[in-house]
Amino acid sequence: MFNLQKYIGQKNQLVNEALEKIFQSFNSSATLIKAMQYSLMAGGKRIRPILCLGSAEAVGGRLEDALPAACALEMIHTYSLIHDDLPAMDDDALRRGKPTCHIAFDEATAILAGDALLTLAFEVLAAASVDGDNLTGKYLEVIRIIAGASGCRGMIQGQMLDMAAESRRLTAGELESMHALKTGALIEASLLCGALFADTGAHQRELLQTYARNIGLAFQVADDILNVEGDPDLMGKAIGTDRQHEKSTYPSVLGLEASKKFARNLVQNALKALENFDKKAEPLRALATYIVERKR
Amino acid sequence: MFNLQKYIGQKNQLVNEALEKIFQSFNSSATLIKAMQYSLMAGGKRIRPILCLGSAEAVGGRLEDALPAACALEMIHTYSLIHDDLPAMDDDALRRGKPTCHIAFDEATAILAGDALLTLAFEVLAAASVDGDNLTGKYLEVIRIIAGASGCRGMIQGQMLDMAAESRRLTAGELESMHALKTGALIEASLLCGALFADTGAHQRELLQTYARNIGLAFQVADDILNVEGDPDLMGKAIGTDRQHEKSTYPSVLGLEASKKFARNLVQNALKALENFDKKAEPLRALATYIVERKR
Repeated sequence: MFNLQKYIGQKNQLVNEALEKIFQSFNSSATLIKAMQYSLMAGGKRIRPILCLGSAEAVGGRLEDALPAACALEMIHTYSLIHDDLPAMDDDALRRGKPTCHIAFDEATAILAGDALLTLAFEVLAAASVDGDNLTGKYLEVIRIIAGASGCRGMIQGQMLDMAAESRRLTAGELESMHALKTGALIEASLLCGALFADTGAHQRELLQTYARNIGLAFQVADDILNVEGDPDLMGKAIGTDRQHEKSTYPSVLGLEASKKFARNLVQNALKALENFDKKAEPLRALATYIVERKR
Repeated sequence: MFNLQKYIGQKNQLVNEALEKIFQSFNSSATLIKAMQYSLMAGGKRIRPILCLGSAEAVGGRLEDALPAACALEMIHTYSLIHDDLPAMDDDALRRGKPTCHIAFDEATAILAGDALLTLAFEVLAAASVDGDNLTGKYLEVIRIIAGASGCRGMIQGQMLDMAAESRRLTAGELESMHALKTGALIEASLLCGALFADTGAHQRELLQTYARNIGLAFQVADDILNVEGDPDLMGKAIGTDRQHEKSTYPSVLGLEASKKFARNLVQNALKALENFDKKAEPLRALATYIVERKR
């Protein structure tokens, strides 16, 4: 029987150690470095790196090849949270039960720490290939995929749409398009980058993309549901805030029960995409279920 | 006789056309894209791209190989200006005679447009190499150099030091260290990236680095001098602002005449580094002089 909690724990440790190693040579007394580490090591779920590593395993790739991509994905995710939390955007004071970066430090430092994490993500990827390892083309492709997914036609455009959607009611279709960009694109990139280092065919990559699109959306639906009926103590943040801000969410657009059913269907679609994968895809299967059943 | 104005005009056009081509496939009606283009096409001097292309020419490299790096450098420079101008940082309303990005759009859009330009820089570099052109390793190295120079041990740390220096008087040494990071690192990266695609030896690269460090600092000294005695109409911004804000500058630390002499000496050092380069380095030589004699 596959033990997901143990798997998540192991992968978390692998990623955290790799992230700490990256910072080892930096000047740890500099405020900028402290702010970057503060947010990066604030106890995130590491969903994207774990999906990236799970994808590598599912297609028989080596974890060490995918690890720089896993770290870069988490840095980019963290920078996006730091900037989204800023007063000019969502103006959030708490994240994962701790003061957000601009509260713990100041606004200018938070902007720059976000910029620096984004930049460092690409530096880590560019430094991942050593002379003669034949992986330069792979890491260049990883950079192309991650930059594309997180840029002006991906995650950042999703945040623009999210802000523009405030105070107006979205349709289910508009909500889906927004989330496909805001969170879906980087989750899809996580799966694609993980699979890049093994000898996968186009069909296998398409199946991983289908899996990614379904769990990416399911993740967001589950987030919306948690904001209605989650446990604030487990989540480290308040619930009911979406409703307070009259935000369009799946529960507000579809209703709570229909949202739960929608999330379960998305997970079924994700599992179906993996049905011809062997037992090496067991972590990805378990992660799909976890994503909608998680409590934080 | 080498005509620098013609050279700058030609290189400007080359870079502007390449930048416009990058945006061609984007959704030009999206606010995010408009904000990115607004700042990128606001009439910047294109110093970094021109130095990058000049460096490529000086060592006999091909302009088309260096052009993606030239574009990426300008995008990163532009993102840094957008973020530096934000209310939480320098709080500037005018840049190059036009409203800054957060004034023309809004603060959230400006933060995201900066993020998107930074991300796009790396996407452009990652997409620059096509299958079988043997340049993947070169572009990965360009990404490593640019990310290193513009990140938490380079430009961003320089901006942190600049903000920390407000309202306290720096020594000439501290001022130099701050500028070496804030503007010097990316200028050095411009020269190194340009030279990367030709078959240069370590010695030639070191000489280009020496050139870069000297003109990088000279550029900043000249900027400080322009803030004292420049023509606001030509510069598109007010003068005397450094003094108003009690900012440590070369004129305030060394005095105006000593600052001018210092700038001239730096240019002499830069020219000396190039003395064994042939006439292909003529643009770099002329640029060194231009940097301290420019009126904007």
